Amino acid sequence: MPDVDERTVRSVAVLGLGLIGGSLARRLAAESDVVGYDADPQTRAAAGTAGLATADSVAAAVAGRDLVVLAVPLPAYERVLSVVAGAAAGAIVTDVASVKVPPLAAARAALAPAGLRYVGGHPMAGSERSGFDASDARLFAGAAWVLCLEEDTDIGAWLTVAALLTRLGCRVVPAGAADHDAAVARVSGLPHLLALALASAGAAGGPLALALAAGSFRDGTRVAGARAELIATLCDGNREALAAVTDEVLAALTAARDALRSGGSIAPLVTAGRAARHRWSGSGLGGHPSTVDVSAAGGRAALLAVGAAGGHVTGVAGGRADCWLPAPAPG
Amino acid sequence: MPDVDERTVRSVAVLGLGLIGGSLARRLAAESDVVGYDADPQTRAAAGTAGLATADSVAAAVAGRDLVVLAVPLPAYERVLSVVAGAAAGAIVTDVASVKVPPLAAARAALAPAGLRYVGGHPMAGSERSGFDASDARLFAGAAWVLCLEEDTDIGAWLTVAALLTRLGCRVVPAGAADHDAAVARVSGLPHLLALALASAGAAGGPLALALAAGSFRDGTRVAGARAELIATLCDGNREALAAVTDEVLAALTAARDALRSGGSIAPLVTAGRAARHRWSGSGLGGHPSTVDVSAAGGRAALLAVGAAGGHVTGVAGGRADCWLPAPAPG
Repeated sequence: MPDVDERTVRSVAVLGLGLIGGSLARRLAAESDVVGYDADPQTRAAAGTAGLATADSVAAAVAGRDLVVLAVPLPAYERVLSVVAGAAAGAIVTDVASVKVPPLAAARAALAPAGLRYVGGHPMAGSERSGFDASDARLFAGAAWVLCLEEDTDIGAWLTVAALLTRLGCRVVPAGAADHDAAVARVSGLPHLLALALASAGAAGGPLALALAAGSFRDGTRVAGARAELIATLCDGNREALAAVTDEVLAALTAARDALRSGGSIAPLVTAGRAARHRWSGSGLGGHPSTVDVSAAGGRAALLAVGAAGGHVTGVAGGRADCWLPAPAPG
Repeated sequence: MPDVDERTVRSVAVLGLGLIGGSLARRLAAESDVVGYDADPQTRAAAGTAGLATADSVAAAVAGRDLVVLAVPLPAYERVLSVVAGAAAGAIVTDVASVKVPPLAAARAALAPAGLRYVGGHPMAGSERSGFDASDARLFAGAAWVLCLEEDTDIGAWLTVAALLTRLGCRVVPAGAADHDAAVARVSGLPHLLALALASAGAAGGPLALALAAGSFRDGTRVAGARAELIATLCDGNREALAAVTDEVLAALTAARDALRSGGSIAPLVTAGRAARHRWSGSGLGGHPSTVDVSAAGGRAALLAVGAAGGHVTGVAGGRADCWLPAPAPG
């Protein structure tokens, strides 16, 4: 029988103390031995003032740690991972980037040769604000947290991270990196792309149009005000999946435009879009618990099926994952 | 000198007691003689229970009234206007439809031959809810209310309605019907169209995608849940203007998709969209008062210039309109 049991994480290094890393370090500090690091000395100082232990280098932060959390921007991954590979022998490494295929490739290249185990992660939580000053230990309470499960993911490492995150109150969603990226292209990248296009089209109408803009424009453009770096990660960082779903939207909008031009109606899109919105609003209203024995044959596939069904892991103990499965969508 | 002075409205008929008509009747009842009518007897009964005077027919409601407010669905305009034309001699007629070119054509055909003066209106206020039960006298407090000014609009009638609306606390925006429809296609029709497309694309990702959907998807799809009839009026009812701005969005999204496919960046759209959103957020933060003497040469053009600049009328007295003009947009 393979070693599939979770371990208790006793010591953590959090690399990058922005909104996500800072919030996670604050939350973990309540129950674990946590040390933080940020490339910016002022951020390190702010974290120290807030009562967090900090290190002066990546190597010092990760030495001897059970778990290393990468919360740095994607462009820094290669550099940081090479240091982690040499300084964190035996550690499990996870991350929090909003795309998961590029980090998986970088981790496989840097960590596997050194014997470190990588489990990609993505907390579905954020804020209009950014930086350590905006960090909040309560940011992840009740949030979905995708934990990537590939063919070559060490299942013991996966369960160890899942056990930690469920203890923090997160809903852990098992998914492959490619499936994650396709899903977030639809529900995260695309909303940003459409918000940007809407904001531009509104402003092109000049002062009269902007003076008449009210609730629908405000909500539809809200995320167009997000940080450019965040939008770039969500969009440019997930280019293939986002291009594919943009093709779908282009087809739907072209059909609507043609219907308007020919004296027809956008009723088909109205029907489909209203039904979709109501299905989403209603999701999560029902469901039932379930347990996956990860040591059993097909345990990995069973975990992935939970995520694919819209479910999540609620707790981990003794190599078993307690799950919640939603009721089938109405309609 | 033409008769450009406003008159005080002493008696009003509100036809259609849904969210908008019901809210307006409730608000006006505090200061005028108001009678309401709705085609649905149950709605009339509910209005009566709420303390509003009601009539049992359109003709009975409008007879002898200074002002008639049409708050009925667009398909009912022709029928209702023909009754109003025969029963409301001398009245000023206004309406609240979210598009303004089709009502203008209907009013010109039905009312002008009978000597009734029409001023098209559109309050930029609403709610997720609908019907008389959702009506609220406070709905219009501080809201923009477009009041259409065409070449053939009687300026005395325009000022009379503007005086009433500003007394209710509304910001009265002067605009031509075609300019109004082009503007709301951008800031009201388009947000609904994009919300519908986003909701459909999200749901096409299945349960995993919907389970990962969070704030950006929630806000971007909110108005996809609006009533189908409301969406149809905003979109099918404004087909030419909405088709034109959809063409602009298709071009922007195609460019973004091509950039993603070719390894480029959506940075140009990010820059333009973020700047547009911030310009809108910042609009209304500065400005200065101004007065338009409507009796002077060019008074009508001066009023339209106020609306085109993003400004509005704050009060009317003695044929003069007190206005507020925004500071030029930054950037």
